[in-house]
Amino acid sequence: MQADHTRSRRWFLGLGAMWSAAIVACRSKTPPSAGPRVLGSPVSPYGSRSSFEKATRYFDQNTKVPLEEAASFTPLHDTYGIITPSSLHFERHHAGVPEIDSTIHTLTIHGLVDRPLEFTVDELKRLPSRSRIHFLECSGNGRGEWNGGSTESQVQRIHGLTSCSEWTGVPLSMLLRECAVQPRATWVLAEGADACKLTRSIPMKKALDDAMIVYAQNGEPLRPEQGYPLRLLVPGWEGNANVKWLRRLKVLDQAAMTREETSKYTDLMPDGTARQFTFDMEPKSLITRPSGGDTLPGPGIHEVSGIAWSGRGTIARVEITVDGGATWTPAELQMPVLPIAHTRFRWSWKWDGREARLASRCTDDTGYTQPPLAELIKIRGANSNYHNNAIQVWKVAADGKLTNGNRA
Amino acid sequence: MQADHTRSRRWFLGLGAMWSAAIVACRSKTPPSAGPRVLGSPVSPYGSRSSFEKATRYFDQNTKVPLEEAASFTPLHDTYGIITPSSLHFERHHAGVPEIDSTIHTLTIHGLVDRPLEFTVDELKRLPSRSRIHFLECSGNGRGEWNGGSTESQVQRIHGLTSCSEWTGVPLSMLLRECAVQPRATWVLAEGADACKLTRSIPMKKALDDAMIVYAQNGEPLRPEQGYPLRLLVPGWEGNANVKWLRRLKVLDQAAMTREETSKYTDLMPDGTARQFTFDMEPKSLITRPSGGDTLPGPGIHEVSGIAWSGRGTIARVEITVDGGATWTPAELQMPVLPIAHTRFRWSWKWDGREARLASRCTDDTGYTQPPLAELIKIRGANSNYHNNAIQVWKVAADGKLTNGNRA
Repeated sequence: MQADHTRSRRWFLGLGAMWSAAIVACRSKTPPSAGPRVLGSPVSPYGSRSSFEKATRYFDQNTKVPLEEAASFTPLHDTYGIITPSSLHFERHHAGVPEIDSTIHTLTIHGLVDRPLEFTVDELKRLPSRSRIHFLECSGNGRGEWNGGSTESQVQRIHGLTSCSEWTGVPLSMLLRECAVQPRATWVLAEGADACKLTRSIPMKKALDDAMIVYAQNGEPLRPEQGYPLRLLVPGWEGNANVKWLRRLKVLDQAAMTREETSKYTDLMPDGTARQFTFDMEPKSLITRPSGGDTLPGPGIHEVSGIAWSGRGTIARVEITVDGGATWTPAELQMPVLPIAHTRFRWSWKWDGREARLASRCTDDTGYTQPPLAELIKIRGANSNYHNNAIQVWKVAADGKLTNGNRA
Repeated sequence: MQADHTRSRRWFLGLGAMWSAAIVACRSKTPPSAGPRVLGSPVSPYGSRSSFEKATRYFDQNTKVPLEEAASFTPLHDTYGIITPSSLHFERHHAGVPEIDSTIHTLTIHGLVDRPLEFTVDELKRLPSRSRIHFLECSGNGRGEWNGGSTESQVQRIHGLTSCSEWTGVPLSMLLRECAVQPRATWVLAEGADACKLTRSIPMKKALDDAMIVYAQNGEPLRPEQGYPLRLLVPGWEGNANVKWLRRLKVLDQAAMTREETSKYTDLMPDGTARQFTFDMEPKSLITRPSGGDTLPGPGIHEVSGIAWSGRGTIARVEITVDGGATWTPAELQMPVLPIAHTRFRWSWKWDGREARLASRCTDDTGYTQPPLAELIKIRGANSNYHNNAIQVWKVAADGKLTNGNRA
């Protein structure tokens, strides 16, 4: 890690000259504020954010869909680093957020096992634990762009169904082993304790690989919207498969073909067939600052920042274009770059004040590079609601205004 | 990182046999809860934790010290992973938490510079940024143990003045360079905007090395208790030097000798002299679970977990003793192990049901190993209030009760 520090220092030294004029221009003309002369607030049991901060999750309040069966979007343009504040983690509920007492809730593992087991939350917390920093993304994230670009302009509204947290829990493999899974078992059905009993089938291979039963998020117990007190975590797989309020795992010899893997969460192809069980969230990146809705104050130097992630591994490279993809320049990746986690990237852009088409694309350590939207549509058609990982273009107008540039 | 994942998997496979009986014993006798049959809560703009969760920062409500000039302690026994929830980050205020409007607040850099500059928060946010996961620890953390062990039993009350966050901001070196610091400048005086205008002198070498002006914490703007809207971050240095509500940096040719570096935050030695400007937080580790106040349910296998950190670099090794330091066994470190950050360690302990003296000690990548309390006192005496990084011993009684084992 020392080497990364050194590299980062060199990077900033190199930037110095470029940014010099911009920094010196910061000199403001008003006298500095002296600050308060009275005592502030006392220490407190559990803190909250400043009343001056207003960033919120976005959701459509004027829809006919009940808000218990809705999604809310992380303000990606207003977040920093790689950890998403738990209060701003995106939501997607199918029957609202149940209020569960963790002292009563249990997880049962049954089905094709010789020894069914049932765990209380406290029992799970006493077992060997692990922590992982992983993103979660709804596979419907960016669904409005499939038809060649939507009229939405803000990164939050277009792509805010991705967030990244430090999760803590137990490896599912350890629990399954003690249940003595029978040889013909190939799938696990995960069921939530919400009113709709949301269910998803997970291949046994994934369950035994890196799946976890998590009870903590960003250092404290899971938030209710994220499955309190227990959630299945299948790293790198579409959000819906990470079943919240987990109450039951039934071991099966085939997929259960639940609503969430037949009528929903399948990708309709041009020939009328559907891709099913498309769990992997493929490499994707977004420039979040500046992004749609922002206005550059004028020509000159600007920081371009965003996030990249891959459900299949680690981000190896992020590149930036300002000419809609004709030429690309590498961005700087913020250490630590972790597998299956948001990776923050940054790049200094000297804008000449002319129209531009600004975008990022990422490549992961499997060698896969994020495709342009037109290429993705060429293969997958425009019928899908899911798995849009195409490059997001921001159109920069001569007056500095950024808008969604996906519609050519 | 793939290698780390693989290693971790092997570790859990190896643990399997050891934990088998404990997991199978988890089988509970009650029928599983069916969960609610009514819709839960709708999506919401900004989430909060479950009403069933009660962990809070601790502070003494019966003291004569006003709660505006007090400390509150992170519930380390109730946190997970390496990120401390911002709402539970420890506090130490000298004049309470000021309520500052970030659109009015500015940072001025002046003194021995050719070009004094003043920055608004928005101007700083537009400059090249960086994010770092770093711990902050009050140098008074564990002060009650200097006299050979206190009567406090809980890890939160003894050592809860340490927390770890992802911080985002700008490198101070970049700002200082543009101010054209004069050749004889050797120190920078940092001043907060709280009512007492807390001030600390920082050597120019540190200011130009890795110091940052941070505006974000764990993905959102700094919390008010952590300096909203701007804080000086001097990675690895005692908490007090990381001046909150930062409003002014004055470049000097000597230390300012403020109250916080003369009558406070100096370490009184046995001969009556004081160590001054002892900025580094030396390697330290704590077993947080189980810890004082916990009771082991009985002999058998138990997870032992805790945190280790070093202000000088990266944790290289954590070892565990159950016999008060006669023998040591290596613990598993949770990846990623980051410089100047909390590092989570874990170890599986097969307790035989007899009295034990449980403790951890860490070694950082400079080769320094955390000392026993008696050794630290031999060198430093027992007069200091600051910089206790000694090994914390938990005494385990035959009935499973854990208490503070520092008093021999």
